[in-house]
Amino acid sequence: MEKIRIGIVGYGNIGRGAERSIMRNEDMELKAVFTRRAPALVQVETEGVPVRHMDDLLSMKDEIDVMVLCGGSATDLPVIGPQLAANFNTIDSFDTHAKIPEYFANMDKAAKAGGNVSIISVGWDPGMFSLNRLYAEAILPQGSTYTFWGKGVSQGHSDAIRRIKGVKNAIQYTVPVDEAVNRVRSGCEPELMTRDKHLRECFVVPEDGADLKVIEEEIKTMPNYFDEYDTTVTFISEEELKREHSRMPHGGFVIRSGETGKEGNKHIMEYSLKLDSNPEFTASVLICYARAAYRLSKAGEKGARSVFDIAPGLLSVKTSEELRKEML
Amino acid sequence: MEKIRIGIVGYGNIGRGAERSIMRNEDMELKAVFTRRAPALVQVETEGVPVRHMDDLLSMKDEIDVMVLCGGSATDLPVIGPQLAANFNTIDSFDTHAKIPEYFANMDKAAKAGGNVSIISVGWDPGMFSLNRLYAEAILPQGSTYTFWGKGVSQGHSDAIRRIKGVKNAIQYTVPVDEAVNRVRSGCEPELMTRDKHLRECFVVPEDGADLKVIEEEIKTMPNYFDEYDTTVTFISEEELKREHSRMPHGGFVIRSGETGKEGNKHIMEYSLKLDSNPEFTASVLICYARAAYRLSKAGEKGARSVFDIAPGLLSVKTSEELRKEML
Repeated sequence: MEKIRIGIVGYGNIGRGAERSIMRNEDMELKAVFTRRAPALVQVETEGVPVRHMDDLLSMKDEIDVMVLCGGSATDLPVIGPQLAANFNTIDSFDTHAKIPEYFANMDKAAKAGGNVSIISVGWDPGMFSLNRLYAEAILPQGSTYTFWGKGVSQGHSDAIRRIKGVKNAIQYTVPVDEAVNRVRSGCEPELMTRDKHLRECFVVPEDGADLKVIEEEIKTMPNYFDEYDTTVTFISEEELKREHSRMPHGGFVIRSGETGKEGNKHIMEYSLKLDSNPEFTASVLICYARAAYRLSKAGEKGARSVFDIAPGLLSVKTSEELRKEML
Repeated sequence: MEKIRIGIVGYGNIGRGAERSIMRNEDMELKAVFTRRAPALVQVETEGVPVRHMDDLLSMKDEIDVMVLCGGSATDLPVIGPQLAANFNTIDSFDTHAKIPEYFANMDKAAKAGGNVSIISVGWDPGMFSLNRLYAEAILPQGSTYTFWGKGVSQGHSDAIRRIKGVKNAIQYTVPVDEAVNRVRSGCEPELMTRDKHLRECFVVPEDGADLKVIEEEIKTMPNYFDEYDTTVTFISEEELKREHSRMPHGGFVIRSGETGKEGNKHIMEYSLKLDSNPEFTASVLICYARAAYRLSKAGEKGARSVFDIAPGLLSVKTSEELRKEML
């Protein structure tokens, strides 16, 4: 089997997850990892795979079929995304929702100019959750869709707490409210406020001598991040944080309830994920979309795509015939 | 808005569901219903829509964009499917799993010859469940996929009971076993036998003077249908059957649990449906795939497709730009 040659750009949690996902897909091989750090200081898991500096990306243009971009959406992808799309087929997990149209346009222009395929905003949300919102709404045009996240760590909210004076370290869990989930599952299509859907649980390591009451108040009243939620704050030691809160679980639900027919027959469609490792799962989604980008590019397609544009069969290692026979 | 002109072939439960689904999709209109019965005896719900005999199908060749085939898979679709695919874009819910490759080949040949697009095996299983099996396996290549059906009516099993001597009427519910579902959800990837996954509940109206013990024994030992299951048989009156068992609910779950990474992090992906009306939901899936067939045909594509070949965005009434902005 001729293997799909993958490059990984950025070697953080998602990058490491991508490497491990490639190991589990027999039709792929990792050709190189690119980093902004000194390559000699980065140790990858796959034997014999070179670590290169990002400045050397173009030197491997003919050796890599798809680049998996594992940088952040805030400042990293908007800059390097289009640069890479001009030279490689790419996959990324761009997740700044408000800027998706602009990012798509930039990636589309660069990918078309370079004759490449770039699939943006791949992962589970955006990604699999988006797909399930779309499928469910297309099938049941009259109805309501609800997305719940968690229980899982929100990196953005954890960072926001860490910026507070007197906070040494912190982690924040987003927790769906059971009662709200159950009401949605009943099909009654409730109107839910932000506060009704999710709780925020914060575990905070204070600096020595910090005023805990002040920290708690500052968290609970923080605009956008916490003020619209019921929030709990628990102070713990650095040791406990490391021991109990160093994994990265996540998950959530997309539920649509809608009706059909004259009598308004009710239907509930639910998609749920329960993930031990958010970055490894996200990376696994990226990697199967890399297969689709490779195939589309081989077929002569060019430009940016989202998960909405990708026929599901392109994600599988199986042929169309096998899929129809075994999975339909 | 120029509407997509739909024809319905076969006016049973699915056909009526398709009509009601078209009413709920603003970009579609029902142009005609075709039946094998005397058209004058068939009353449709949409005002002004003609009922024609199946022999008159070709007379409306230029007035219909997509034909939704609502016939049965056993004897109906294998014959009329290719005939119609030669003349119209088509959607069907062909569900004889073992014969899908052969049916696909026949539909592909006919659709290509006629310059049409035919999407086969659309519904929820085959259909949405198939898609979820594919997505989940592509994301987590190492793992196990489980499909549970129910609680819902199995037409095939109900018919099998009705053929037993002394049975006047009957209905059979397929019921997933909670314990099995919960073990699967725990991520332990259990090996489950047929008997472990589903129960079969039978409600039987006996003829006067029939030997109930004989009927019950005959049901419980029926090869293929019941002998591998734990089956309950409850005798009821015709009135109770009509009163309590005339709706057509169904549903089920597709669950994949798999692992990623070096440490074997566990992930559970679950898709579930809870349906008040099996035929209306199935028809709603057919109708949104009719939109995709119309668009593919407009774009010049030809031949048979399955749900695996259809980019999700083609199902939605929204444009690609709207989808990226609102749903990604």
